[in-house]
Amino acid sequence: MSYFNEITLGVCYYPEHWKEELWPEDLRRMRDAGITMIRIGEFAWNKFENQEGVFDFSFFDRFLDVVRTTDIKVIFCTPTATPPAWLTLKYPEVLAVDLDGRKQYHGARRHYNYNSPIYRDKTRIITEQLARHYGEHKCIIGWQIDNELNCVTNEFYSESDHEAFRTFLQERYGTLEQLNSAWGTVFWNQTYTEWEQVYLPRHTQRDTCNPHLRLDAVRFFSESCISYCRLQYEILKQYLPDHVFVTTNGLFGHVDYNRMVNEALDFITYDSYPEFGLMEGADHLKDRRWSMNLARARGTVKGFGIMEQQSGPGGWYNFRVAPSAKPGQIRLWTFQSIANGADFVSYFRWRTCSFGTEIYWHGILGYDNLDNRRLEEIRNLSKDIKKISGMAGSRYQAKAAILYDYDNEWDGETDVWHGPLRRYSHLGLFQALQEEHIPFDYVTVTPEMDVHTLQQYEVVFAPHMTIVNPALVQVIREYVEGGGKFITGARTGYKDMNGRCPMEIMPIRMTDLFGIHILDFTAVMPDSTDQYAQMDGQKIYMPLFHDILTPVDEACVIVATYCSGYYQGSPAIVRKRTGAGEAYYFGAAFDCKTVKTLLRSAGVSSGLSCWASVPEWCETAVREGDRGACLFILNYEDKWTEIQLRRTMKNVLTGNEESGTIKLEPFGVLVYEI
Amino acid sequence: MSYFNEITLGVCYYPEHWKEELWPEDLRRMRDAGITMIRIGEFAWNKFENQEGVFDFSFFDRFLDVVRTTDIKVIFCTPTATPPAWLTLKYPEVLAVDLDGRKQYHGARRHYNYNSPIYRDKTRIITEQLARHYGEHKCIIGWQIDNELNCVTNEFYSESDHEAFRTFLQERYGTLEQLNSAWGTVFWNQTYTEWEQVYLPRHTQRDTCNPHLRLDAVRFFSESCISYCRLQYEILKQYLPDHVFVTTNGLFGHVDYNRMVNEALDFITYDSYPEFGLMEGADHLKDRRWSMNLARARGTVKGFGIMEQQSGPGGWYNFRVAPSAKPGQIRLWTFQSIANGADFVSYFRWRTCSFGTEIYWHGILGYDNLDNRRLEEIRNLSKDIKKISGMAGSRYQAKAAILYDYDNEWDGETDVWHGPLRRYSHLGLFQALQEEHIPFDYVTVTPEMDVHTLQQYEVVFAPHMTIVNPALVQVIREYVEGGGKFITGARTGYKDMNGRCPMEIMPIRMTDLFGIHILDFTAVMPDSTDQYAQMDGQKIYMPLFHDILTPVDEACVIVATYCSGYYQGSPAIVRKRTGAGEAYYFGAAFDCKTVKTLLRSAGVSSGLSCWASVPEWCETAVREGDRGACLFILNYEDKWTEIQLRRTMKNVLTGNEESGTIKLEPFGVLVYEI
Amino acid sequence: MSYFNEITLGVCYYPEHWKEELWPEDLRRMRDAGITMIRIGEFAWNKFENQEGVFDFSFFDRFLDVVRTTDIKVIFCTPTATPPAWLTLKYPEVLAVDLDGRKQYHGARRHYNYNSPIYRDKTRIITEQLARHYGEHKCIIGWQIDNELNCVTNEFYSESDHEAFRTFLQERYGTLEQLNSAWGTVFWNQTYTEWEQVYLPRHTQRDTCNPHLRLDAVRFFSESCISYCRLQYEILKQYLPDHVFVTTNGLFGHVDYNRMVNEALDFITYDSYPEFGLMEGADHLKDRRWSMNLARARGTVKGFGIMEQQSGPGGWYNFRVAPSAKPGQIRLWTFQSIANGADFVSYFRWRTCSFGTEIYWHGILGYDNLDNRRLEEIRNLSKDIKKISGMAGSRYQAKAAILYDYDNEWDGETDVWHGPLRRYSHLGLFQALQEEHIPFDYVTVTPEMDVHTLQQYEVVFAPHMTIVNPALVQVIREYVEGGGKFITGARTGYKDMNGRCPMEIMPIRMTDLFGIHILDFTAVMPDSTDQYAQMDGQKIYMPLFHDILTPVDEACVIVATYCSGYYQGSPAIVRKRTGAGEAYYFGAAFDCKTVKTLLRSAGVSSGLSCWASVPEWCETAVREGDRGACLFILNYEDKWTEIQLRRTMKNVLTGNEESGTIKLEPFGVLVYEI
Repeated sequence: MSYFNEITLGVCYYPEHWKEELWPEDLRRMRDAGITMIRIGEFAWNKFENQEGVFDFSFFDRFLDVVRTTDIKVIFCTPTATPPAWLTLKYPEVLAVDLDGRKQYHGARRHYNYNSPIYRDKTRIITEQLARHYGEHKCIIGWQIDNELNCVTNEFYSESDHEAFRTFLQERYGTLEQLNSAWGTVFWNQTYTEWEQVYLPRHTQRDTCNPHLRLDAVRFFSESCISYCRLQYEILKQYLPDHVFVTTNGLFGHVDYNRMVNEALDFITYDSYPEFGLMEGADHLKDRRWSMNLARARGTVKGFGIMEQQSGPGGWYNFRVAPSAKPGQIRLWTFQSIANGADFVSYFRWRTCSFGTEIYWHGILGYDNLDNRRLEEIRNLSKDIKKISGMAGSRYQAKAAILYDYDNEWDGETDVWHGPLRRYSHLGLFQALQEEHIPFDYVTVTPEMDVHTLQQYEVVFAPHMTIVNPALVQVIREYVEGGGKFITGARTGYKDMNGRCPMEIMPIRMTDLFGIHILDFTAVMPDSTDQYAQMDGQKIYMPLFHDILTPVDEACVIVATYCSGYYQGSPAIVRKRTGAGEAYYFGAAFDCKTVKTLLRSAGVSSGLSCWASVPEWCETAVREGDRGACLFILNYEDKWTEIQLRRTMKNVLTGNEESGTIKLEPFGVLVYEI
Repeated sequence: MSYFNEITLGVCYYPEHWKEELWPEDLRRMRDAGITMIRIGEFAWNKFENQEGVFDFSFFDRFLDVVRTTDIKVIFCTPTATPPAWLTLKYPEVLAVDLDGRKQYHGARRHYNYNSPIYRDKTRIITEQLARHYGEHKCIIGWQIDNELNCVTNEFYSESDHEAFRTFLQERYGTLEQLNSAWGTVFWNQTYTEWEQVYLPRHTQRDTCNPHLRLDAVRFFSESCISYCRLQYEILKQYLPDHVFVTTNGLFGHVDYNRMVNEALDFITYDSYPEFGLMEGADHLKDRRWSMNLARARGTVKGFGIMEQQSGPGGWYNFRVAPSAKPGQIRLWTFQSIANGADFVSYFRWRTCSFGTEIYWHGILGYDNLDNRRLEEIRNLSKDIKKISGMAGSRYQAKAAILYDYDNEWDGETDVWHGPLRRYSHLGLFQALQEEHIPFDYVTVTPEMDVHTLQQYEVVFAPHMTIVNPALVQVIREYVEGGGKFITGARTGYKDMNGRCPMEIMPIRMTDLFGIHILDFTAVMPDSTDQYAQMDGQKIYMPLFHDILTPVDEACVIVATYCSGYYQGSPAIVRKRTGAGEAYYFGAAFDCKTVKTLLRSAGVSSGLSCWASVPEWCETAVREGDRGACLFILNYEDKWTEIQLRRTMKNVLTGNEESGTIKLEPFGVLVYEI
Repeated sequence: MSYFNEITLGVCYYPEHWKEELWPEDLRRMRDAGITMIRIGEFAWNKFENQEGVFDFSFFDRFLDVVRTTDIKVIFCTPTATPPAWLTLKYPEVLAVDLDGRKQYHGARRHYNYNSPIYRDKTRIITEQLARHYGEHKCIIGWQIDNELNCVTNEFYSESDHEAFRTFLQERYGTLEQLNSAWGTVFWNQTYTEWEQVYLPRHTQRDTCNPHLRLDAVRFFSESCISYCRLQYEILKQYLPDHVFVTTNGLFGHVDYNRMVNEALDFITYDSYPEFGLMEGADHLKDRRWSMNLARARGTVKGFGIMEQQSGPGGWYNFRVAPSAKPGQIRLWTFQSIANGADFVSYFRWRTCSFGTEIYWHGILGYDNLDNRRLEEIRNLSKDIKKISGMAGSRYQAKAAILYDYDNEWDGETDVWHGPLRRYSHLGLFQALQEEHIPFDYVTVTPEMDVHTLQQYEVVFAPHMTIVNPALVQVIREYVEGGGKFITGARTGYKDMNGRCPMEIMPIRMTDLFGIHILDFTAVMPDSTDQYAQMDGQKIYMPLFHDILTPVDEACVIVATYCSGYYQGSPAIVRKRTGAGEAYYFGAAFDCKTVKTLLRSAGVSSGLSCWASVPEWCETAVREGDRGACLFILNYEDKWTEIQLRRTMKNVLTGNEESGTIKLEPFGVLVYEI
């Protein structure tokens, strides 16, 4: 992302929500707090086209005239996330429909479907009108397409969707015979004899459907979303100067963001709300878990920004009550985003809305519009950001990689045999790597991926690679031969790309990589006493599922064996050396503590130890670029903590050279030049 | 309510459920047990109009001929709660429809909608026919309109409702421009440009909708219900002699009962089933909580009766299993109703039904029709009731008031930011006042309310007055100036009458009343350790939400401060004197124990201490009227207890003068002349 | 069931799922493992009729040509469980519809309704085509109609169903007047005045409906299912030789299997999946509970087989994760089926399916098609089965009976007042009888039942006979007079055959049998302290409900009295001698421990004590026939256990004479000649 030369702070603003008299003052106060960018327009269709085909730009023209008097820059949005009432009333076929056939009516967001010819037409018209009118506006540095595509719902079942799905399948499979074979429709007599018999999933007995159809349906949902985004992208690009970027804000389900970025965006942005991690029912990683999402955004390759960064407590009137961020947390989360690779951070939102569903989704300012501690905190942190502004464009330095593949992600959503393992292990791996200060990237599996992608990492995890992508296996093989450490978990290797289980020995296509056959396995019920393996005299936790590993190769080394069960003593973890590297098969789901033991056994350690010793409750990250490298240390706890520096380093925020024991305040942040 | 000169016992009877031969014997046995009134006819439409437009009164004529041979009086019902099968099959548009668009079919109750022109027509016809035929019948002392309006469902989404809603809004707002502004439709591009785009809530993404629309929708549901009731009321009143009353039985959701009583009834009745409080999952207040509901009925001002008082265990065949009332509990609950202000008590029902959904909603008699302990208990208690019959028309004497406003009630139903506080605090306040023997009234906020309404109370609570009614604020101000104590809780004062948050300092319109600004606040998660405040050296519980209070007036006295959190030491409770009174702002939700501490601090104590010392597990109440005053003491526990009388008083039920320590049996009742 | 001369092992096979090249090898490997029978074709409609009206038998002809080269026998299925896509798309009226009116679309199983004239027509055609083509095939020894009728859904609400229901009711009641009376429609004004007003239950307020209508609706669902089965049965029987049987596989809800077997089958089969008992959330009886289901299958009188016996772990991709059977469990469960009376056991399925919803419903072989421990276990156990093959046709020997009546079963499904008692007591009785080694049968109440049916049992339980069948009462009376012990529990005797409560003293029609009146009763909440009775100085548990028994006959003996509550000291259990026998009334639900005490008090003991002393965690069973008798002992625990033989007996599986202490391995099985 070369669009930002400096780390930039922005804010989401809704001129249409406020009296025009407030505009100049609002912009002045933003600027005063170090905010130099605003995002506008994403829910404002009626402000441009209040009647079908009648366009009027005067409202936003007036607003931009005020902006022009400042040096604030603008990200302008296409307003397609919320179609006008006149549109959905006149053309109900544009409405999104759920699996039960229920229309999603006017009044919320995103109640349209991507495949409606009418909606695509209306989208084309409004996008072109806006691009033509505002494309060359001097204040506008970039555009956001729609808003949070696939948020709220990411499955669509309107008639248009069923029809487009058939076309999608015809392109994918050619003939019904191929389709029947790919989906195994001979099971339960699902065989199709005419294309019009084929539908996206519909309501069935016990709400099941053909799982291979379902996997293709999700691929189709992703394709629909990308295609809709591309529709707007291509129009915008016709009208925009080269230096003006086009993005959208994610991340949501059922979108292959790598393809979306490649085909329909200049780069991706992420909406980061770490406070959800502090609410009732959140998992134990709390706000720190948002670094996992930031790693996902980073995994879409071209760099990223934060389009919405939480500033006030969030919640709809009828959904979610969040506590207020404690003093220091807004700053902490801003640095969390930047440490993890964001090049800009735009707060959501300037002032809490006075009406509507998000009346409690608080902005920087409250209803009363007074200066407050949140504005003060941002004003102060903006000075810190200035000191690290040169980090824009630099890269997060990772030592480990976790493969993220949409095929297994989507298959696992409804597959209760590997989906829960996947979710469990992603948390376990994330926590272990965070606490051991081993920085990691999510590496998304793409068709373009080759061994060079993996070679920059010392170790690569593929937690539960149930569906086996043959091209990926080849890359992994080369990675291991070249010296890499590859680690996979239970239920690896038993499905093909359609989600079918071929008549092969598991782990299919990889028996030689690990030197094992998997001839027996069992789910492990929560009340089972058979949950442990023995590893170097240590008892380690092996939850959820057990693959029972049968070594078939002398090079296969048994790392751990099961402690009990009818397969007591059988291998639970093995490793096999191939070329310069090693492949590990781990027979269960990845628990945090077990992962730490495994990392130690595999000789993978933190790369930070030369600089500092940091407790596990702090996050560490290194960004490095043409203009230098920085070490970030983030304290998520509401208590003072101590860091031991191993060498003298320059504290970027204070300008001091520091060494020895450093005291870090609650929610505090340290940045060192390294 | 001047219709009852004596406290009267009645029973619900269904002549259509039984062989005619049973009628004379049933009436004789009732009379013998002290029952002098029956309610009939509420589900008997087919007995009058078995075919469309063909009327036949012979069945109930025959029954009333039998009644005429006794001195039993009759409350006659209009039968509109259950439209005939012929009606709903021929005119399906009369059926109630839920938010998802599903019709509610024949077979249960209340499956019609209030706004269907056809149903209003059919209602007019049957009501007029009945009023004309039975209006002057000598046995009939009153009428019940329909049955439990808004029970089972209180939201209606048929086409007729959508249309009527548009008319309601046109009257309320005049123009779409006003409507768009009132609802803040600019948010999420909800702007309406034609009236036909406006609907009651419909199915949307994530089931959210515009909250201001929703508030108006509930107001509309209430208006629809009242309007339907008024339709019948006006017809009935044309035909009834002046001494014959018209009522209906409540209380259910989404009805402004004060308006209903003012516009469409002579008075309200309540259906009291305290045994639900003894079932699994009920809250800790158990059957005693029904006094809270009775206080609500009392709050509708014109006096009230109990149209259905639980006698046997209740339950549908497919819903709810209640234990049987223990010996003494029917008597206890009868006195509970009367102590709380009821002028008559009509048991539900004479004999358990032999068929249908309510086959387990037991009456006084069982299936076997034998005399039983329930009949015996009522026969005995009826003699007690005779001794206090002069209490009819007397008033419950309250010292405290809790404001009950439909705007906040309805807004809080879906608003997860203040609704749960509201529910928590109503229980906390009720329990504290009950246990401290400080009698209270619910005072419903009405347009007619003035300072005189409040002046009769020493203290007035407005637990969480989120929506601020400007007229009410004026009344409260006068109340405080005149010497009243006014206490409000967290989240007070940030919404206008449309539920929008104006750009003002909270608590809006009341900053001067309390001498504070609320500039920061936070929800308190259940696992938070920051749940306490310090008050006079005592640690008090402050659950759910914390308003952080900033005194801005020297007259503002800090009563308590938060014990921990980033706002440790900040004011949690303040009071400010204005004129002769005081206003308290309490920063959290009202917990029972905390309320007791607060009452002590505010100098509010029981008015009963001159007469008796009563343990907290007994309820006390005083009714006073032209014919004297009585103190009621009710023991809800299944154990003997002791009361200390502070003076010699006449026990009304025994006729004895009593003093000193009195032993009260399990579920026992004492009534003293005072 | 005279169709099997030897206990036979079979397997479910799907030739259409596999390459034809695999067929010969598969059959050879089956035969090699002792499997001599396969079931085929139940989901293969498209393999016969890929276009409407165009029939092609070549696929299964080819397969049967391969089978013919072996001595393997075939059970052939009609394929109506899964209609083709071309059928349901062209004729959507054949689809099943749920109570909310939602169609169940193509993609799962059983998405048709039994009453659609078109579907019945299509069924007739395909069944006739298959019967004509395959009826006399030498390999085919029997037919299975459809597959798991009423599985997945057992309620149907399509237009065809509503219409057929009216016809069903016209036959049952003749006139609407009779119907109105039978259903008590006068309650809530449900009176019908035209037949077209009558519907099966539809969506109503609070999802209630007339309970008598509902009971008839379930009877109608059962009748529809039987009638559909009979439609196929009658066609098949026209074409099949006499020695070829017709069956179907159960047991599922809303079918009177006794009537189905009598009218539409030669015998019933059961699909046994004991591993569900090992999954999360299963009850404490675990896999042993499947003996309860086997007793139900046995209760349909004519003998039975197991059409699907679990071999691998079960689960759909989106529903259920089962652990793998431990070594020995497949053998244990096979013997469980046989000990409980099965004459053949057919495993589900040969090889795990590679695709579709049941991709995790593992067969004997895994995806990899390798020989595995499951195949090995079956190969070994098949030799054991050979040793007891003469048991085919012998009868399970029971000492106790539990009456199973569909009227109370179906009424109790939605009736929360007696349904939960029923479910609780069935488990309590089953566990007590199992652990005391008192073998029992479920005796289904049928119109043909007479005293001889009961006389073979020492004791008969009718847990909660709420609905009283007059004919049954007569049989029970004769049974008691003839020396039987009859025991019934709380809530016995208050409903007639329509589920109405007549105006009689409870237990209706049986007050003289027990010598009691039930004049008071109460539900017992879980938190109640009044849950015990005193019996011979012992405190026994009396959960869920208390009938308070009033003796009215000198012959009534009080067996136990309640320990507390307002009815403390009142009779809780009574017995009365009539003729040579005794009738017990037990005032609560049957808890396992209490049942054991009661059995001891009633003098009912295990009949096995002469042969062996067996711990309670083992199941025992005796089968006896023309060719001898065997005692089965089954160890459900994963640990060694000891059995004490009381005499020397021949171990059928080893051929040894054994006596004294026998060690039984985990999941082990013993079979002795007796």
